[in-house]
This record gives sequence, structure tokens and C-alpha cells, in this order.
Amino acid sequence: MSFQLTILGTGSATPVLTRNPTAHYLHIEQDGYLIDCGEGTQNQLLRYKLRSTRLKYIFITHLHGDHYFGLIGLISTLNMHRRTDDLWIFGPKGLAEIITIQLKYSDAWLNFKVHFIETETEKTYQLFENECVTVTTIPLVHRVPCCGFLIKEKRGKRKLRKEVLPADLSIDEIKSLKEGYDILDENGQLKYSNATLTKPEVEPKSYAFCSDTLFHEPIIEIVRGVDLLYHEATFLKDLTARATQTCHSTAAQAAEIAERAKVKKLVIGHYSSRYKDLEPFLLEAKKIFENTILSTEGLTLDI
Amino acid sequence: MSFQLTILGTGSATPVLTRNPTAHYLHIEQDGYLIDCGEGTQNQLLRYKLRSTRLKYIFITHLHGDHYFGLIGLISTLNMHRRTDDLWIFGPKGLAEIITIQLKYSDAWLNFKVHFIETETEKTYQLFENECVTVTTIPLVHRVPCCGFLIKEKRGKRKLRKEVLPADLSIDEIKSLKEGYDILDENGQLKYSNATLTKPEVEPKSYAFCSDTLFHEPIIEIVRGVDLLYHEATFLKDLTARATQTCHSTAAQAAEIAERAKVKKLVIGHYSSRYKDLEPFLLEAKKIFENTILSTEGLTLDI
Repeated sequence: MSFQLTILGTGSATPVLTRNPTAHYLHIEQDGYLIDCGEGTQNQLLRYKLRSTRLKYIFITHLHGDHYFGLIGLISTLNMHRRTDDLWIFGPKGLAEIITIQLKYSDAWLNFKVHFIETETEKTYQLFENECVTVTTIPLVHRVPCCGFLIKEKRGKRKLRKEVLPADLSIDEIKSLKEGYDILDENGQLKYSNATLTKPEVEPKSYAFCSDTLFHEPIIEIVRGVDLLYHEATFLKDLTARATQTCHSTAAQAAEIAERAKVKKLVIGHYSSRYKDLEPFLLEAKKIFENTILSTEGLTLDI
Repeated sequence: MSFQLTILGTGSATPVLTRNPTAHYLHIEQDGYLIDCGEGTQNQLLRYKLRSTRLKYIFITHLHGDHYFGLIGLISTLNMHRRTDDLWIFGPKGLAEIITIQLKYSDAWLNFKVHFIETETEKTYQLFENECVTVTTIPLVHRVPCCGFLIKEKRGKRKLRKEVLPADLSIDEIKSLKEGYDILDENGQLKYSNATLTKPEVEPKSYAFCSDTLFHEPIIEIVRGVDLLYHEATFLKDLTARATQTCHSTAAQAAEIAERAKVKKLVIGHYSSRYKDLEPFLLEAKKIFENTILSTEGLTLDI
């Protein structure tokens, strides 16, 4: 199953020309998932040739502008492109109102249905599932209601070992095998063992997105063992006091969450505009959690 | 008096990577005036090193996204930069509501006062004046309420001819001269004639901004003789029917307005995303009005 992340923005609230505000695009199977949508995200989708026709689910962490000001523009453009497929938008209270009022005054009647689902940002719960994934909220601590998202593949079906598969299996029997059952004969006796004819699907992948937040220990249990953790790192350690004051994290704190949660890989971002050189972020995080990478604009990662 | 235009966006509703949505920045004396503010305008201000601390007046023609989706981001950034100076925002009904609701949910209390002034888009009237300019509305015909803006310098004071100025003039006498009066002696007799000691200020400059609109003849009288007319030209002449259907204009129609209004110079823009090559716009317009130029991103014009 394809599970690919493209990072569309690495900056934080104050705009700089070299960084776009937060937006992460996930391509899972045939569908596009967007997490956060700062101003200019639709241009970033264009720039990295991510087809917005595939975009089906949008998750907004919180209502600070660098995480959602691009949403109304993206929706308007989808409409101009004559989209007819439904779109699901998950976000905190207020988001639906903000989008709806702007559509009203532009006299734009959408050709497609938008399903707004309000997130409860203060508890962790399964927000959404489809055939491929579940999405669970990650409560974060910020200056306004805010939650991250844990996106987890569902356990896949077992894979047939075609080289040993008997020719006489019916379609129903093949379906049973994929679902993990043995094949029995008419007397209820074992005919073919599942373990012989199938092999396990690869381990389900998982991705956790945590931005913006104070260093917050409860995150650790929720993201434990994920394949890829994105955790904001707005400041370096010497500005821990500033991070605390603004409800943000340092590179060291992001790495501590990754280390204690035993995730497989950490990607950091949401850099304050004061930093030109990002190398110190990487050095600071790697001291605590070796498998850290810096998010950069357009970076694509297979999860 | 300095009166300088910088064009920040030349595109129309559908985003393309090479063009930003509409925004024109005027630098008049010490103040910045922004007309329209599509998504990404704050980045364009950064890119062209236009100091947003100078920005004092924002005029929004209408509530289609490519003309205002960048406004909330710009306001948020001004606030992050600890602005304390008042800001005046002129725009149609709905704009104040849209901005206010977004500030409410981001829990952002502005450090500066915003004066929202609702435009009446269906009549031409003096919307605003300060020491330097008057701003008059230009009713346009579009799919939602929409008006352009005519920005005119006020007639300046007369200039002193320093080379012939007597040394014995009092401050009050100098002030009188600048205001066009002769200087009389204590008997009420002519002491110095104004015509000898002063020369006229240069002719007041004017700039008219018309976007988006159907070809609309009443514009002609309002913009008559302006130094620079910006008129949208979304399509070429062969798509006049499409222009009419979408309440836009062609390059030929923009040029006809310019020609009949006897303006000094025409700049066209708001090109549909379907056009890669803009040369045909220039050719089409120049056939009708020779002194036409194409708007390009970052183009700066002294008016």
C-alpha cells in the first residue's frame, strides 16, 4: 500500500520568502489527505504536482492563520476546477463558520458537498476511518484549541503465495484465505492451512503529526512506535523559555518525545522566522534522537 | 510629490505559479495604499521590499477570493510585527464580518485599531480624503458588488522660486505665497506679486483601478484624463462572449475605455490562467490605444 508524505510548508507564523506555512500532504492508496493548509498551500500543491482532484480529506489542527488561511482559497479553486466529489474537512469549532461566511459573500455555490466534522481537541479518540486508515486525535497544548492527528493503516489482508496455490480454489475460498481462514472440506476437516497458502501483509504503517504544541508528555503514549513522527520544533534549546511562553517546542523537546515514544523516524519543522540556518536544529535533535531529519519544502518521504 | 505604483499580482481567479492574484501597492508621499489583496500578497510585499509599516489604507474592490483572501494573513502579520498605527480598510459589506470572525477564533487581539469603511459599490462618490489625495469609487459590473477606485492627488501648493525670494519675508508671508496670495504692504498696496515669487506646483496626478468588470461605458467619464488607468483584461477579443458571460473584459475593451476616456497611459492585467503568452494582449490593446503596457509581477511605475 502506498503511504507517502510530501511536506509543503516548513515555516511558522511570521512569513519568510523561503518557507511556506504548515501543510503536509499524504498520498495513501488513491486518496490525498492534507494536514493543515496555511496561506499559499494551493500553490504548493501545484508546484509539487500533487493532483488536487485526489484530495479527499483535510485535517486542520487549530485556527491560527499559518495553519488554515489557505483553506478557503483551495476550496474555491477546487470549485472552479468543477470538482463534484465530496470533500471531508476536520477541524476545531469555528472553521465551518469561517469558510461558510466567505463562500456566502463570494456568491459561490459549491458544485461538491463539503462534510465539516468538528474535532474535540481535548481528548484522544478515533476521529475517522475509511477502508485504508484510521485517524486518531492527539490533544496538544497551544494558545487555542489544537490537536494533532495519528494516521494509521488498517491491518492489511494476508497475501496469497501464488507459487503454491492449488488450482481448484473457488473465489469464496480465495477470499477466506485472504481474511486469514483455513479452508475446510465438506466434513469440516482441514483441507488447506492458511499458513501454508498465504503470507502476512506488511506491517501497517503509521504517521503522527504534532503541531503546534508545548512539550507535552501525554503525546508519547499516543504516538508510541509510529513509523514517522512529525513534531514541531519552532525554537532551539537556548530559547526554551520563549517556546514555553508561546506554547511551542524546541528541537530538543521534539527529539525527547520521539526518543521516549520509540518512534522509527522523526521529522521536525515549523521553524521560527528568526532562524536562517537550520543545521543547529538537526544537531540538537540528533543528540537525543539519532534518526531525525529536517523538513524541507517539497521533501517527499515514503512511510 | 511621490506617487508610485508597484504591481504585486497579475493573475485572475485560477492560480498559476507564475502569477499572483490581484494586488496593487501605491506609495504616495510617506504612506502605503494597497488595492486588493489576493492570497499571498503579504509575501509579494516582502519580495519587493515594500515596508508594511508604511501601509495605512487598504481598498478591496469585491469579495471574490483572488481579490481579498490575503487580507486576513496580512493583518495577522502586521499584528505579529507589533504594529500600533491605525489601519483603514475600505470594502464591500461582509468584509468586516469575515475578518472579525477569523480574528475571534485565532484569539488574536489586535494591537492596532482597524477602521472598516463599507463601500457603496453602486454609485460614484468620494469615499475618502486625507492631506494628499481623494479616493472616489468607480462602480463596476461584476457577479458580486464591486467598485474600482480613482485616487487623485489634491492640488498642491505653489512652489517658491528660491532664486528670487527676498530675504525679508516673514513666515506668514511665505505661507501666503505658497497658498497663492500676493504680498501687500501696510497700506494694502502690492509689495510682491505671487506670480513673480512662485511657480505652479506640478499638475496633480491620478490613478484609476478597474477590476473586475464587464465592459461598462459609465467608467469612461469617471476616469477621464487620468495619468494611469489600470483596467482588467481577462480575455482576448476572440473570447468576448466568455468575457461577457463571466462579467470580465477583453484587452480590446480595456483599450476602448482608455481611448475614449483619453487617459495618458493604460496598464492591463488579471489575465486568465489559460494564457501563457501575454504578447497578444499588448498587440490587441495597442491597436486601439497605443500607450498601453502589460502589468507584470513587481513592475513599478512612477505616476
